[in-house]
Amino acid sequence: VQLTFTILLDLLGTFAFAVSGIRHASGKQIDWFGAYILGLVTAIGGGTLRDLLLDVTPFWMLQPHYFIVTGVALLAVLLFKERMLKIGSTLFLFDTIGLGLFTVVGITKSMDAGLPVWVCIVMGTITGSVGGVIRDMLLNQVPLLFRKDIYALACVAGGVVYFTCSFLKLPMGFTEVIAALTVIVFRLIAVKYHLHLPQLKAINRKPKSL
Amino acid sequence: VQLTFTILLDLLGTFAFAVSGIRHASGKQIDWFGAYILGLVTAIGGGTLRDLLLDVTPFWMLQPHYFIVTGVALLAVLLFKERMLKIGSTLFLFDTIGLGLFTVVGITKSMDAGLPVWVCIVMGTITGSVGGVIRDMLLNQVPLLFRKDIYALACVAGGVVYFTCSFLKLPMGFTEVIAALTVIVFRLIAVKYHLHLPQLKAINRKPKSL
Amino acid sequence: VQLTFTILLDLLGTFAFAVSGIRHASGKQIDWFGAYILGLVTAIGGGTLRDLLLDVTPFWMLQPHYFIVTGVALLAVLLFKERMLKIGSTLFLFDTIGLGLFTVVGITKSMDAGLPVWVCIVMGTITGSVGGVIRDMLLNQVPLLFRKDIYALACVAGGVVYFTCSFLKLPMGFTEVIAALTVIVFRLIAVKYHLHLPQLKAINRKPKSL
Repeated sequence: VQLTFTILLDLLGTFAFAVSGIRHASGKQIDWFGAYILGLVTAIGGGTLRDLLLDVTPFWMLQPHYFIVTGVALLAVLLFKERMLKIGSTLFLFDTIGLGLFTVVGITKSMDAGLPVWVCIVMGTITGSVGGVIRDMLLNQVPLLFRKDIYALACVAGGVVYFTCSFLKLPMGFTEVIAALTVIVFRLIAVKYHLHLPQLKAINRKPKSL
Repeated sequence: VQLTFTILLDLLGTFAFAVSGIRHASGKQIDWFGAYILGLVTAIGGGTLRDLLLDVTPFWMLQPHYFIVTGVALLAVLLFKERMLKIGSTLFLFDTIGLGLFTVVGITKSMDAGLPVWVCIVMGTITGSVGGVIRDMLLNQVPLLFRKDIYALACVAGGVVYFTCSFLKLPMGFTEVIAALTVIVFRLIAVKYHLHLPQLKAINRKPKSL
Repeated sequence: VQLTFTILLDLLGTFAFAVSGIRHASGKQIDWFGAYILGLVTAIGGGTLRDLLLDVTPFWMLQPHYFIVTGVALLAVLLFKERMLKIGSTLFLFDTIGLGLFTVVGITKSMDAGLPVWVCIVMGTITGSVGGVIRDMLLNQVPLLFRKDIYALACVAGGVVYFTCSFLKLPMGFTEVIAALTVIVFRLIAVKYHLHLPQLKAINRKPKSL
């Protein structure tokens, strides 16, 4: 049951992130194939870095699901454009759901590799947030991650909840759902109430470079 | 013979991509050493990501050829600048040749690693196109790959031809040449006749960020 | 003794690079957590790429030192902002010290992996300079590395000195200090006397793209 559930989380997160990447590509003179690649990179970028760091075969090489789901996401965006226009905050919501699901997938996979708790939380954060960072870098923007702390911080919060549930010996599927919900709710609340950490003020008026 | 031929393709592709990277660096306040590094990254970036994904030793660590060829490419650009100025489309041609050659090298290497056909085609596309993507990211531009679909799509077409020839049991060297030519011709025709996929139109007028 | 000394170099370099990354984040609407991540990436980015290329476990997964040192660096910047403002060139100095220390750490680690001399020098250069390149890419700037050659060239010089000392059978700790100082002094002199390689002039007035 646990394995199946993790796979489901994974596919849902892939779809959510792919839609997010494809929609970020819209209106920027990027064609359908470019949008597909951006969606794919957003969806599999974080997990790929995680697998390279863990020295395991990148997950998407083992089965073509992720490429197919991204194709479905592109089709959905092309077909339901109008409807998505009406639901104004869909993009934001998709990103947040993907963040929660992927963070949990990343933590579970790192735990299975027998890594210490703090490394698992870092890996969960990488899995959840690096895809979006690569997306922003490819679109030539300073990653939102650096301007809105709640993004990565939500992953860390989810990781702490995950290991608290784990410590309390709660069932695995339950732990995963609670941790993913923590990430999602944490981020939704932060955005709704404009919670944020202070920004780092300018230090040098005229910084000596490098 | 096959091995020698693959090596020759590889060196030619390296030279072509290195020239492309170095020429993209020109006129952007980048010095000779910076240009050398940009040429090198363009040439070896795609293959390095492929080897990291395949979990084999990055090809350029095994022999210094690639660093030497890039040096020759820098010298050639410095010496024959004027002549290259006259041949207006050299840069474009070099990029396209590199794309064709590297795609084939990437597919062959992945086949030798025993991977399924679709993964081999993805690896060929990565080998051919990621160097240029990293080059564009370093130069702070949205990668051309995302705006001109024919780039990556040509790699996919080459991959399909490669496996069709392979399925027909044609000789290896022949298969490689045909596949590389497919990529090159596909791209040349697409650019000459302005073929392209539709672009993804703006979806949200005022997108909710992240 | 050698191991301890290398660890000390490593921690010092981490602190130096983390401060550099955090200070680059200042004044750019990046919050504390974003600044922490930028500092971390600047500090561990080069070594992480090196370890991925060498196919060994990324160094920071083995102990939490690097995350803690980066936290200390963030605290230092937040507390001593004013003082750091007065010392105008601190940022530059920190970057240069980190460069020297990390280059040596990278070379030593690659030598321990039994790699040829030229690969070790490349790995030292990657360890020293890639963190800053990723930092600049994340901040959406053309990496300074490409505009100021002395950066990467100083690493190469340090590598040559390292292997000259090694060839002369000088003690390891001594060799490491001399090589790190070479990088640092080489760069300081180059910046003080405005030494630089010629830049690559524009080749095409109207470049055919891709």
